[in-house]
Amino acid sequence: MFKLFPVTNGLENVKGFFCGATNVGMRTNPVNSGGGDVDGDVAFIRSESPCDISAVFTSNTFQAAPIKHFLKYPKEFQTDFVLINAKNANAMTGEKGIEDIDTIMSTLRTKIDVLNPVMSSTGVIGYRLPVDKITSAFDTLNFHASDSHKAARAIMTTDSFKKELAYKVELENSKSFNIAAICKGAGMINPAMATMLCFIITDANIPKSDMDELLVQSTEDSFNRISVDGDTSTNDTVMLLANKESGAYHKEAFKAALNKIMFELAMMILKDGEGANKLVAFEVRGAKSEEEAKKASMALSNSLLVKTALFGEDPNWGRIASTIGASGIACDEKKLTIHYDDLLIYSDTFRELDKEREDKAYKIMKQESFKVTCDIGLGAGSYTSYGCDLSYEYVKINAEYRT
Amino acid sequence: MFKLFPVTNGLENVKGFFCGATNVGMRTNPVNSGGGDVDGDVAFIRSESPCDISAVFTSNTFQAAPIKHFLKYPKEFQTDFVLINAKNANAMTGEKGIEDIDTIMSTLRTKIDVLNPVMSSTGVIGYRLPVDKITSAFDTLNFHASDSHKAARAIMTTDSFKKELAYKVELENSKSFNIAAICKGAGMINPAMATMLCFIITDANIPKSDMDELLVQSTEDSFNRISVDGDTSTNDTVMLLANKESGAYHKEAFKAALNKIMFELAMMILKDGEGANKLVAFEVRGAKSEEEAKKASMALSNSLLVKTALFGEDPNWGRIASTIGASGIACDEKKLTIHYDDLLIYSDTFRELDKEREDKAYKIMKQESFKVTCDIGLGAGSYTSYGCDLSYEYVKINAEYRT
Repeated sequence: MFKLFPVTNGLENVKGFFCGATNVGMRTNPVNSGGGDVDGDVAFIRSESPCDISAVFTSNTFQAAPIKHFLKYPKEFQTDFVLINAKNANAMTGEKGIEDIDTIMSTLRTKIDVLNPVMSSTGVIGYRLPVDKITSAFDTLNFHASDSHKAARAIMTTDSFKKELAYKVELENSKSFNIAAICKGAGMINPAMATMLCFIITDANIPKSDMDELLVQSTEDSFNRISVDGDTSTNDTVMLLANKESGAYHKEAFKAALNKIMFELAMMILKDGEGANKLVAFEVRGAKSEEEAKKASMALSNSLLVKTALFGEDPNWGRIASTIGASGIACDEKKLTIHYDDLLIYSDTFRELDKEREDKAYKIMKQESFKVTCDIGLGAGSYTSYGCDLSYEYVKINAEYRT
Repeated sequence: MFKLFPVTNGLENVKGFFCGATNVGMRTNPVNSGGGDVDGDVAFIRSESPCDISAVFTSNTFQAAPIKHFLKYPKEFQTDFVLINAKNANAMTGEKGIEDIDTIMSTLRTKIDVLNPVMSSTGVIGYRLPVDKITSAFDTLNFHASDSHKAARAIMTTDSFKKELAYKVELENSKSFNIAAICKGAGMINPAMATMLCFIITDANIPKSDMDELLVQSTEDSFNRISVDGDTSTNDTVMLLANKESGAYHKEAFKAALNKIMFELAMMILKDGEGANKLVAFEVRGAKSEEEAKKASMALSNSLLVKTALFGEDPNWGRIASTIGASGIACDEKKLTIHYDDLLIYSDTFRELDKEREDKAYKIMKQESFKVTCDIGLGAGSYTSYGCDLSYEYVKINAEYRT
């Protein structure tokens, strides 16, 4: 058995890591730079001792330069330094984009000893990194800082709040380890198209093979439930660094902690949806297979007509039904039922909403979060994905982004 | 050889057809009832003599009751009467929905002789048709009217203008035939999710087998280029009725006329995009196959980030590139080129926009319509789809629809 509890602040809870950020002047328009919470534009995470590192990257064919740079290291490399910048994705920049990272890291080495440093970027596609600006960060950064808040704020783009979490895990043998993360990303209509970056660090004594296995699993159960498979930005990255310094490890405990931290971060991304006000879980059950349930659930959380109905707080189950019918899964209007939370709003024998039930549905939709459950009635496949509403604000943010 | 020329007005140009509409009071909120151009809510199209009929219906599993009613007729049935209503889709209404149509048609038969009458509906999903209101139309409708404008206006929902077109086709032998259509639908983020209805009539002496073949082909080259395959509303319908009364026919001439009329209607739908201001052609060429070109082209015309960038008139080719990379087709950033109209905005050796070129791109994007061409540089596959921008107005219309 083990105990898992949240601790305040973020990355500084994990033994042997340092982190911080600075401002090198890459942000020109505060409106599109994370609002009031943003602070700085270049961040770092550093470990005293070498870390094993696992990563999950975007499935976009046009992977950004920092990802290509990462993948040039040998498969089982260790690192002790991650550099992160906002405002420029260093994507679609060709060989030059990779050379720019090498140049930055050469300059870094004149300031501090680093082992196989990696980089991660988010921002606009298609522009070379301002190398001189970024290397100027090394003059002001305190490489012995423990300023997780500042690092979390520096990596924001359209985020309206910083995202950081930390958990302590106590094992039966009275040993304990820590896990913490910072993350950026704002859920949107197709959340996958906005860059999502997540950096998780731990002092657990976790074997590399477990890191690889559990990171993929947890990504599937968190960030991939708020996005469409295979339709991701050029830069999406989830990294897990482990320096093993606590000496403690328990696979089930670590798995639980990693799942929890990644799911909570995914919900924070959705909650911070660009202009979004509501968080809705779309549970599809009774489908012929899990694959079919996933297909329908993802179709719902990505449907613009469903999203605008959520924004308008319109209990229009027709759009839910139509989206399921269009998703291509086996379904039958006589077997289907639809609930908003516990309220039945559609079944074969119950189609038109009376006034009383419509009022109840309306109240449910007024909540900040609720659940739509669609029972297909044909099998045992189930899947839940998570979506947000679509508001005027979304259009505004994305029409004006980049400037 | 043949000559094809547009004629004024609409359905009344075709020999032996009547059409008209009336208002039975189904529209309660003029804001969501097609704006100023709307007139009436029940329309009909009628032929003096029996017509062959071909139809293409939605691929949504939950086909609406009028489609199920249609499909209950024998495969090669003839008809002389189409009844169309707005404001209520008669979808997800079960067996009762089909019975309601039978009831309506029984009442119709007490007023006028009809052969295998069919129905088509658009509007909100999940409510029984107001049968009494609809049959009250038969007291006021003039079944010998030729009021195409009124019919085109009565079938509008979120459309802001009526859609009707007519062409006369003159053949070498000095014979001629006519083809005309009315249509409703407003292009949107995923245009396929809003009901699209199109009724095409002709007096050409076309064989039924040609009708079936050409209607499918032309649908693929028109309405399906502004939507995603397989992701359609419960009611989408394209019908072609031929009463053969002109005695004239030429397959190539008919094909050209049908293609032209359907493509122009598709562009009218897009132009009438809910809140949309721009019409953009997304040509993908040089893909490994036509299938891959279509996949990437459709991904572009459906991408929200591309659509909001269009609305913001931001020459952000990064979103175009990222969408292609995410579409899952074979591509290579060294081979890719992107043009806005004739302006090169991305190639391997030309990535960052200078001020002059950005200004040119900005001017192109200011136009009401322009073309984005992405050459993948890997093969001979090409495909063009058509999209519109995403504006605040879209969210407003779709948040408020139904009320």
